[in-house]
Amino acid sequence: MGSAGHAAMTSTTTPVSIRRITDDSASDAEDLLAVEEPLEIVVVARARGAQQDRAERRLGITMRTPGHDRELAIGLLFAEGIIAGAADVVAVEEGEGPSGGLVRVALRDEVTVDLGRTERALAVASASCGVCGKASIDVASFAPPAPLARGAPRLAPRVVHGLAARLRGAQPVFGRTGGLHAAALFDASGALADLREDVGRHNAVDKLVGAALLAGKLPDPGAVLMVSGRAGFELVQKALRASIPVMVAVGAPSSLAAELASAHGMTLVGFARDGRFNVYAGRERVAVPGEAAS
Amino acid sequence: MGSAGHAAMTSTTTPVSIRRITDDSASDAEDLLAVEEPLEIVVVARARGAQQDRAERRLGITMRTPGHDRELAIGLLFAEGIIAGAADVVAVEEGEGPSGGLVRVALRDEVTVDLGRTERALAVASASCGVCGKASIDVASFAPPAPLARGAPRLAPRVVHGLAARLRGAQPVFGRTGGLHAAALFDASGALADLREDVGRHNAVDKLVGAALLAGKLPDPGAVLMVSGRAGFELVQKALRASIPVMVAVGAPSSLAAELASAHGMTLVGFARDGRFNVYAGRERVAVPGEAAS
Repeated sequence: MGSAGHAAMTSTTTPVSIRRITDDSASDAEDLLAVEEPLEIVVVARARGAQQDRAERRLGITMRTPGHDRELAIGLLFAEGIIAGAADVVAVEEGEGPSGGLVRVALRDEVTVDLGRTERALAVASASCGVCGKASIDVASFAPPAPLARGAPRLAPRVVHGLAARLRGAQPVFGRTGGLHAAALFDASGALADLREDVGRHNAVDKLVGAALLAGKLPDPGAVLMVSGRAGFELVQKALRASIPVMVAVGAPSSLAAELASAHGMTLVGFARDGRFNVYAGRERVAVPGEAAS
Repeated sequence: MGSAGHAAMTSTTTPVSIRRITDDSASDAEDLLAVEEPLEIVVVARARGAQQDRAERRLGITMRTPGHDRELAIGLLFAEGIIAGAADVVAVEEGEGPSGGLVRVALRDEVTVDLGRTERALAVASASCGVCGKASIDVASFAPPAPLARGAPRLAPRVVHGLAARLRGAQPVFGRTGGLHAAALFDASGALADLREDVGRHNAVDKLVGAALLAGKLPDPGAVLMVSGRAGFELVQKALRASIPVMVAVGAPSSLAAELASAHGMTLVGFARDGRFNVYAGRERVAVPGEAAS
């Protein structure tokens, strides 16, 4: 259940002819744009409360940058609580949908899907920049699968300072298009474990978490999630769902993101760039300069 | 139908206690975060195909930064094709919803709402960073209300160079939180007409367009829309729906955004910062340096 194969044949960038204009010059040039295309997600599962056998259910369509589509589907199903982990998945295959790519995820027979809730959850997965249903904003009732371990990992400030540069340095497509969000997992020493990119910042995190789930690398009590943009509450929710104890954002957190992180003992760092950062929640995991980090 | 009143009592920022860490110091500080809160949108309208009188219909909940909520609701209903303009609106009022703010939009009796389609459209309004329904990604069949006038407005490069700085200079909240997207309308000479901010970049455009509709300022064949982030296809769709001929983004466009702009003769500029920019579509509206702009 890796992510090679079909994904390698799709393209994350597309060439485009542009006019480049500066203060005193105009020139025709070729540029690369980050690709944004629909991906249909289908599960093969039994409906909750029904006696039928497993059947194909079209869950929805996500706009994403092609590549790592299977990981995206797994990460999204996990984030929305439809699967509890990779063990719930029997097979993941890519195919052709009516409007672009398609990923079909077959669940084991014991996993039933609440179709109404699921379709709603998927339709509203992108709540932080648009209209959504009630499900995903019920901050008070959101519960991660397990409480986070207090105090671990403990990060040295120099490690946090280094994350943003490593994230950018490891972004293969951003350098060519400037148009992609990135999400990466690091360990507490600042070593990069994995990175994913997408035009959608939520997708980038779903791909990253999906890859880690498929590789059996989650939960990891020492994991640090770094995101290239801002920290909205849905990204904090995804991190909590994956039991990731620390999230570091290059941009600003929102009020709800800080609230949710605080409520669940997660460490949330914002504005991590140019040798400084702010700790908005869970400050016990960040050593102060000069103090030794474990 | 302005936007003062209740909105003035809500807050766009909230104070939070943080730890600020640099290379060699750690200090406790107060910071301001951009507020992200649910807003429920309710229309009072007749259902299409039914004989009943007008009734309240709960359309959905958007996560937004409080303020200009009525404009947001109007802009969103317009972007989704539920209303054709401010003339379809009889009253807009703010109230208290079960989970936060609420805006109630009463439509004139002649306007009927296709409830299934509408709920779906609103649930998927944020397609570009998550899962969406098919409706909003049907690029091929998307049709703006009227074709754009060819060749107008015509922009001098120095005007485009100046937009990003003016946008940032005019952002009242961003300077305090660093966490808000902005959208602004300029004229072809670079004069700022209006600006709105929100944690969601789609919301910022909806607020801006809603305000312009309520003020009777759209359509405007000379309007230039500037956005603080990237240009996804949904923002291009919103601009086309509002018959705005030029969109300028500080960040990168996606492939689908450039495609959609090209297909409808809209001018799309990306990476407008630091004295340079790229023209991805509709280059006939941008004068080359030295050439006179009309």
